[in-house]
Amino acid sequence: MPAGDPSAPAAHAGHAPARVDKEHSVRVELGARSYDILIGEGLIDRAGTEVAARLPGARVLVVTDERVAKLHLGRLEIALSGAGIASSTLVLPAGETTKSFAHLERSVDAILEARLERGDAVVALGGGVIGDLAGFASAVAKRGMGFVQVPTTLLAQVDSSVGGKTGINTPRGKNLVGAFHQPALVLSDVATLDTLSPREFAAGYAEVVKYGLIDRPDFFDFLEKNRAAIFAGGPERAEAIRISCEAKAAVVAADEEEHGARALLNLGHTFGHALERAVGYDAARLVHGEGVSIGMALAHRFSVKLGLATGQDAGRVAAHLRAAGLPTEISAIPGPAIGRETLMEAIAQDKKVSRGRLTFILTRGIGRSFLAGGVDPAEVEGFLDEELSQ
Amino acid sequence: MPAGDPSAPAAHAGHAPARVDKEHSVRVELGARSYDILIGEGLIDRAGTEVAARLPGARVLVVTDERVAKLHLGRLEIALSGAGIASSTLVLPAGETTKSFAHLERSVDAILEARLERGDAVVALGGGVIGDLAGFASAVAKRGMGFVQVPTTLLAQVDSSVGGKTGINTPRGKNLVGAFHQPALVLSDVATLDTLSPREFAAGYAEVVKYGLIDRPDFFDFLEKNRAAIFAGGPERAEAIRISCEAKAAVVAADEEEHGARALLNLGHTFGHALERAVGYDAARLVHGEGVSIGMALAHRFSVKLGLATGQDAGRVAAHLRAAGLPTEISAIPGPAIGRETLMEAIAQDKKVSRGRLTFILTRGIGRSFLAGGVDPAEVEGFLDEELSQ
Ligand SMILES: NC(=O)c1ccc[n+]([C@@H]2O[C@H](COP(=O)([O-])OP(=O)(O)OC[C@H]3O[C@@H](n4cnc5c(N)ncnc54)[C@H](O)[C@@H]3O)[C@@H](O)[C@H]2O)c1
Ligand SMILES: NC(=O)c1ccc[n+]([C@@H]2O[C@H](COP(=O)([O-])OP(=O)(O)OC[C@H]3O[C@@H](n4cnc5c(N)ncnc54)[C@H](O)[C@@H]3O)[C@@H](O)[C@H]2O)c1
Ligand SMILES: [Zn+2]
Ligand SMILES: [Zn+2]
Repeated sequence: MPAGDPSAPAAHAGHAPARVDKEHSVRVELGARSYDILIGEGLIDRAGTEVAARLPGARVLVVTDERVAKLHLGRLEIALSGAGIASSTLVLPAGETTKSFAHLERSVDAILEARLERGDAVVALGGGVIGDLAGFASAVAKRGMGFVQVPTTLLAQVDSSVGGKTGINTPRGKNLVGAFHQPALVLSDVATLDTLSPREFAAGYAEVVKYGLIDRPDFFDFLEKNRAAIFAGGPERAEAIRISCEAKAAVVAADEEEHGARALLNLGHTFGHALERAVGYDAARLVHGEGVSIGMALAHRFSVKLGLATGQDAGRVAAHLRAAGLPTEISAIPGPAIGRETLMEAIAQDKKVSRGRLTFILTRGIGRSFLAGGVDPAEVEGFLDEELSQ
Repeated sequence: MPAGDPSAPAAHAGHAPARVDKEHSVRVELGARSYDILIGEGLIDRAGTEVAARLPGARVLVVTDERVAKLHLGRLEIALSGAGIASSTLVLPAGETTKSFAHLERSVDAILEARLERGDAVVALGGGVIGDLAGFASAVAKRGMGFVQVPTTLLAQVDSSVGGKTGINTPRGKNLVGAFHQPALVLSDVATLDTLSPREFAAGYAEVVKYGLIDRPDFFDFLEKNRAAIFAGGPERAEAIRISCEAKAAVVAADEEEHGARALLNLGHTFGHALERAVGYDAARLVHGEGVSIGMALAHRFSVKLGLATGQDAGRVAAHLRAAGLPTEISAIPGPAIGRETLMEAIAQDKKVSRGRLTFILTRGIGRSFLAGGVDPAEVEGFLDEELSQ
């Protein structure tokens, strides 16, 4: 079912043509560290040959979590051994608490126990938690070895597996320790998403919508038209993942180590992180993508209040997110009400704060986001009062 | 007391002129990551201005060990505050066991507690242990921040502080986890060496001799002539450190992430590491530089046995090391005798082994070392039998 090319606004002309293919490949251009993202149904079955083609002779350690191991590890192991790749496996508990120093040490030890050398590779099979942790372990074991991402959540396929940011959490905060370490290959088997819970799928979808809202208005149109097909697992799902990866790859190529241009990827994240912090990172109340969804809705409404965007655009964004099953209001978060002070403190702790002024990603409309450096905290307080009184 | 230029064999023509200066500066050329090594008496007192000039506005965390803190921390803190640099300090236990995951976590936590950002810096004040650990912490906290080396052992001034290799040990072996992270500045105050024990000074001197033996025969001549002055703390000491840093900087510039050319820096280290392993890293019996000294003497005698070098050269090397108070025979190691099997096993475990053949740095004479890839283990066994029967 061909569709009009959703990824070609004027600013992105020259991209792939207007077809909904079965399989896609996106190149992340980083000179000697360039790599491919392969996207398609059933790609895990080809993992062995794809890894062998890029890392000839490499042995691998597969790192995964208990839930993903039950669902998808067997096929990966068969694919690897079928291509003559010697592998061993480390299965860790599922969940955000696995991104810790203790599990980093355990992962590094498994790499050393498997006697991997710098030309060998760690394969991360799972969501962003496993990708971030295993990627960091592969960055520091023997001062850096090969790394392959096999992302199995929508969030990981469109966001965390692309760009080389790896890391762990500490009691002082999330992602405070890590390394930039690019994978040699990202293999996104979209069929693995069939086993993902609807809530996790929707959470990942928030990041997909984000790319449209940053600077791809035609992609947002595409999402409005094809949301049902994407959630149903039609070919539009892989197409949306491809465009998301192209969007992220372009930003990463321009700013590999996050010195500036990557900032727009934080659309919805200043409010989103504050909400996650306010609920104490309790996933039962709010997962990351849900926080981003509310955060993006807030960023649009805040932009309307500042006279930057129209209420019509903000309404269109919120309607689309709600249709995808995502929250768009702070009051939608279950549990005790969240106060303005709690949120303001959490925003002030966010790393994007400098000298009393706040940095936000604001917008002039759908696909027209920009970095606003000197936002007055009083304006934010006033806005939050309005939001919380509804 | 000017000396003939010791650092200018034909292969290194164009280097600095033939003077023994009070202060030296060596540039490590690594494109955007280039940096200066400053070498001189009393440089710690200028640490504040030198850091401020290179990292304007940076705040710092000083990491040091208990022994060095007592001797040199006060002056560094005064120098930093004198230049208006806000600093805090982390003092760790002295010794190799500090290079652990637990102390990495502690160091990273101190960085986060001090709220350092990516533009701020960690300052390592101490020997190679502190430099390797603090450098690694600065590489991974917030995915990488500024780093300054203030090395206080001879080994650290001529070797570990130059080149950006950072890391820790694990129960499976030394330096198995780490990162390449170049400092923004190396500040070598040679006066700090006055408080170093004679044994630690001699151990560091083994690495100085190494640079002459690799490919700088004129530098070896210089060392033969000026050994007494170097040990007595004359200006020849800083000169020897300068030439050592130039030698290492040249290798690092050619091979930043150790893909090949850096291998020659391992002269004496295959045997040396095997001896360290054989004594269970018991510093009372053998410290690293002593192992390297015996290893270099063995590499020369092994080269003689293989018909590559003359006994005269091997004798000259051993005589110089012995005059410096360094061991040159396996039997010089105190404690239980070390057997051939123990050494062969340790050599086989070394990372420079591939497919049954051994890789050694051998030599055709003083300053004429080369990488030999396919050494037959039986030849090594025969050689060790001779050495151990003496
Ligand atoms: N590195 C980056 O650039 C980057 C970007 C965004 C987010 N992140 C990180 O990603 C993490 C979140 O990633 P996530 O949302 O994928 O979380 P996750 O890895 O915890 O996965 C969510 C849950 O889904 C399960 N799961 C994974 N794949 C499945 C499948 N195919 N079927 C059924 N269940 C499956 C997991 O076991 C887990 O319980 C966070 O730690 C965040 O910091 C990193
Ligand atoms: N990164 C690299 O490229 C590289 C290269 C070679 C060695 N290394 C590492 O360096 C480490 C050895 O370094 P080291 O020999 O400096 O050991 P070290 O840091 O343990 O210092 C040796 C001892 O000297 C003391 N000391 C330091 N400065 C002093 C001073 N000025 N006065 C009195 N005492 C002082 C220390 O407290 C310690 O007890 C090893 O861990 C080795 O792996 C790293
Ligand atoms: Zn996100
Ligand atoms: Zn050494």
